[in-house]
Amino acid sequence: MGDILRARVFTALTPCASVAGMSHFMQRAGASGAGFVVAVVGASGAVGVELVRCLEERGFPVAELKLFASSRSAGKRLSFRGQQVEIEELGEQSFRGVDLALFSAGSAISKRYAPLAARQGTLVIDNSSAFRMDPTVPLVIPEINAAAALKHRGIIANPNCAAIISITPLWPIHRINPVRRLIVSTYQAASGAGAAAMQELRESTRAFLEDRPYAHTVLPHPYAFNLFSHNTKVDAVTGYNEEETKVIEETRKIFADPGFRITATCVRVPVLRAHCVALNFECETPINASLVRDILAAAPGVKIIDDTAANYFPMPKDATGQDAILVGRIRQDVSDPSGRSIAMFVAGDQLLKGAALNAVQIAECLLADQKTIAA
Amino acid sequence: MGDILRARVFTALTPCASVAGMSHFMQRAGASGAGFVVAVVGASGAVGVELVRCLEERGFPVAELKLFASSRSAGKRLSFRGQQVEIEELGEQSFRGVDLALFSAGSAISKRYAPLAARQGTLVIDNSSAFRMDPTVPLVIPEINAAAALKHRGIIANPNCAAIISITPLWPIHRINPVRRLIVSTYQAASGAGAAAMQELRESTRAFLEDRPYAHTVLPHPYAFNLFSHNTKVDAVTGYNEEETKVIEETRKIFADPGFRITATCVRVPVLRAHCVALNFECETPINASLVRDILAAAPGVKIIDDTAANYFPMPKDATGQDAILVGRIRQDVSDPSGRSIAMFVAGDQLLKGAALNAVQIAECLLADQKTIAA
Repeated sequence: MGDILRARVFTALTPCASVAGMSHFMQRAGASGAGFVVAVVGASGAVGVELVRCLEERGFPVAELKLFASSRSAGKRLSFRGQQVEIEELGEQSFRGVDLALFSAGSAISKRYAPLAARQGTLVIDNSSAFRMDPTVPLVIPEINAAAALKHRGIIANPNCAAIISITPLWPIHRINPVRRLIVSTYQAASGAGAAAMQELRESTRAFLEDRPYAHTVLPHPYAFNLFSHNTKVDAVTGYNEEETKVIEETRKIFADPGFRITATCVRVPVLRAHCVALNFECETPINASLVRDILAAAPGVKIIDDTAANYFPMPKDATGQDAILVGRIRQDVSDPSGRSIAMFVAGDQLLKGAALNAVQIAECLLADQKTIAA
Repeated sequence: MGDILRARVFTALTPCASVAGMSHFMQRAGASGAGFVVAVVGASGAVGVELVRCLEERGFPVAELKLFASSRSAGKRLSFRGQQVEIEELGEQSFRGVDLALFSAGSAISKRYAPLAARQGTLVIDNSSAFRMDPTVPLVIPEINAAAALKHRGIIANPNCAAIISITPLWPIHRINPVRRLIVSTYQAASGAGAAAMQELRESTRAFLEDRPYAHTVLPHPYAFNLFSHNTKVDAVTGYNEEETKVIEETRKIFADPGFRITATCVRVPVLRAHCVALNFECETPINASLVRDILAAAPGVKIIDDTAANYFPMPKDATGQDAILVGRIRQDVSDPSGRSIAMFVAGDQLLKGAALNAVQIAECLLADQKTIAA
C-alpha cells in the first residue's frame, strides 16, 4: 500500500458512531483482502500483547503485522492468526510502509518515534500520555467523541485507563442530564503499571504467604495485601498526583468542557488487571437510579451488573477479559437532598477497554462501522 | 468487688476528654491495686484477641480477666500478663461478679447476653451493631463524644469500624468549620469479617498463586486479587448495603446531627486488617489543606502521613498495629470551585481503633483520664 493511499485511508472517514456506510478504502481493503500494514510498538508489554490479541479477535483488516520493542525483547515471538511473529528492535526505519502504528511503550518512546512515524504517513494511535493534552491531537473514547478522531494530524491519543473506565459509563447520562460535578475514587490494578508490576504483586504476595522477605523494585511500596496512593508524582502545590491530574484534565478534553467540575483520588489496590471506580455525580436536574439504569441499559460499551438481592456487583474478577465496562451499585447519593446526585460503582479491564481495546476501536472508527469489519 | 461498687464505678465519671481529675473509685482501684473484674466475650475472635492485648498493653486496671466464647473455643487459652487464661463457654451465669464486659461475638450473642449482664450490674461495652441505634444506648468515639458515655444505662455501643476510621479525623475539622456534606468511599480489609475471612483471604490467594481451585465459604465472592462491594445485605429500596447504612446513621448519631449529609460506598479489598477511606467533604466556609493539616496536627488519635515529595501516604501496612488513624493526601477538592471542599485519604487498624482499642478507650473514659491509668 503506497504512501498516498495510506495518507488517504486515515484522513476523513466516518466515525463508527454514525455508521454512514463503508468507505471506498474499506471496500477496497475488504474486496482485495489486502488490509493494512499494522505495527505494534511495545509489543512485549502488558498492553502490547493485548493489542495483538484485539487485532486478531476483532478481525481487524491486517495484511501484515509488525511487532516492535526494545532490544531486550527483540527476537521474542507472539502468535497472530496462527503465525509466530518475531519482535524487532524499534528504530527510525521501522515505520516504512506501515499504515497504522499502535504505540504502547511509554511516553519517551512515543515522543521520539510517533511524530517521525506520522511524518512518514503512518497513522499513530498512542496509548502513552505524551500527546494527550496537545490541542492538535484528538483524545478519543469512541463511545463519547468518535468524531474528534477525524480531526487528527497523524496522531490520535488513547486516554488514561482510569479516565476511560470512569467516564465511558458517565457519558450517556451526561448527554441527557448534564453532570455538574463528579467525584472519582479509584481502585486500580497492578496492570496499569505494566507486566512487571503484575509480576511484583504475584511474587511479593507469594513471599508474604511464605514469610519470606521481598525487595520490591517496580512499585514504590510493598504491594502484598497492601494498597497505596497512586505511584505517580504528586504536585507539591495542588497535592494531586499525575494519575489524578490525567483523569481530571482528560475528562475535560474528551467532554469538550474545560470547566467540567471533577476531582479524583487514585489508589493502587492489590488486584491484577481490572480497575474499579466509585463515582459520585451531581446532575443538572433531579435524577433517580431507575432512570440511570434505563439510560445505561441502552448505552454502548457498558453492561449493568446490579443484583441487589444476590449482592452481585461489578468486580475485577468479572471485568477481567471483558470488553464492556461493568456498572452497578446504582443508587441515589443520599448526601444530596436535592435528588440530583447518583452514586455508582464500575469495573473495567485496564488492559482492554482501559488501553488496547479502546485503541483498536479508535482505528475501527476511522475505517468504517464495526459490522463492516466483522463481516 | 460488690455489686454496689460496680454499679457506682461506671455511672457518672469524668470523660477522658475533659480530664477533671481522678475519681474516688479510680483512686481506690489504683491504691489497692485491686482493679476490676473484666470479661471479654468472643475472646477467640479477631477482635477478642485484640481486646485482651489492649487491656494488657494499656495497663487497664484488671484484677481478674475472664474469657468467654462458644463451646467450640472453650478450653483454648490466651496469654494475659504472662498468665494463660482459659476460655470458658459463655452462659447466663458468666457475668456474676464481672464489673466490665467487652462484647465482640456478633449481634445475636449481644442481644441475648448484654441486657442480662447489664441487669446484673455489669457495664457492657458492645462491639456489635445490636444496640448502636438504640436511643437509650450511647454510641461513643472518645475523641468525639466521650461525654455521651456517661449517660449509659448499662450498655455502651462501640461504633462500626468504617465509621470510626472515617469520622475520627473529620471531627476536629467539623468542630471548627462545620462539614455540610461528606462522601465516603472505603477500602475495607478482611478483618472486618473476622479471623476466618482473613484466613480465607490468605488461603484463597495461596491457591490462586499455585493455580489450585479454592471454594470460598466465609465471604460471598472469590477474594484472591479481587475486590467486591461490601458483603452485608443490600436494601432493595435504597440500594445501600448495611455497612453503608451503619456508616451513615452512626455518624449522624455520634455527631448528634440527625440531618448530617453523608453518603458511603463500602468496598471489601484484599487487605488483611487495616481499612482505608477516601473522604470528600464540603465545609460551611472556605477552607484549605494547610489549615486542615494544622487542625489535625493538634488532634487526638490521628497522625498525619502526608509526604508528597516521597509519595508516602497512609497505607494498610503502616496502619496495622497502630493506635492512631493515619491521615494524608490532604488537598483541595477541585470539583468545588467555592473553595469549601477538601479531599483526604485515611487508614486505620480495623481491629484496634476500629474495634478493640476504641472499646477499651471508652472504658478508660469512664474510669478517669488516660494519664492516670498509664501512671
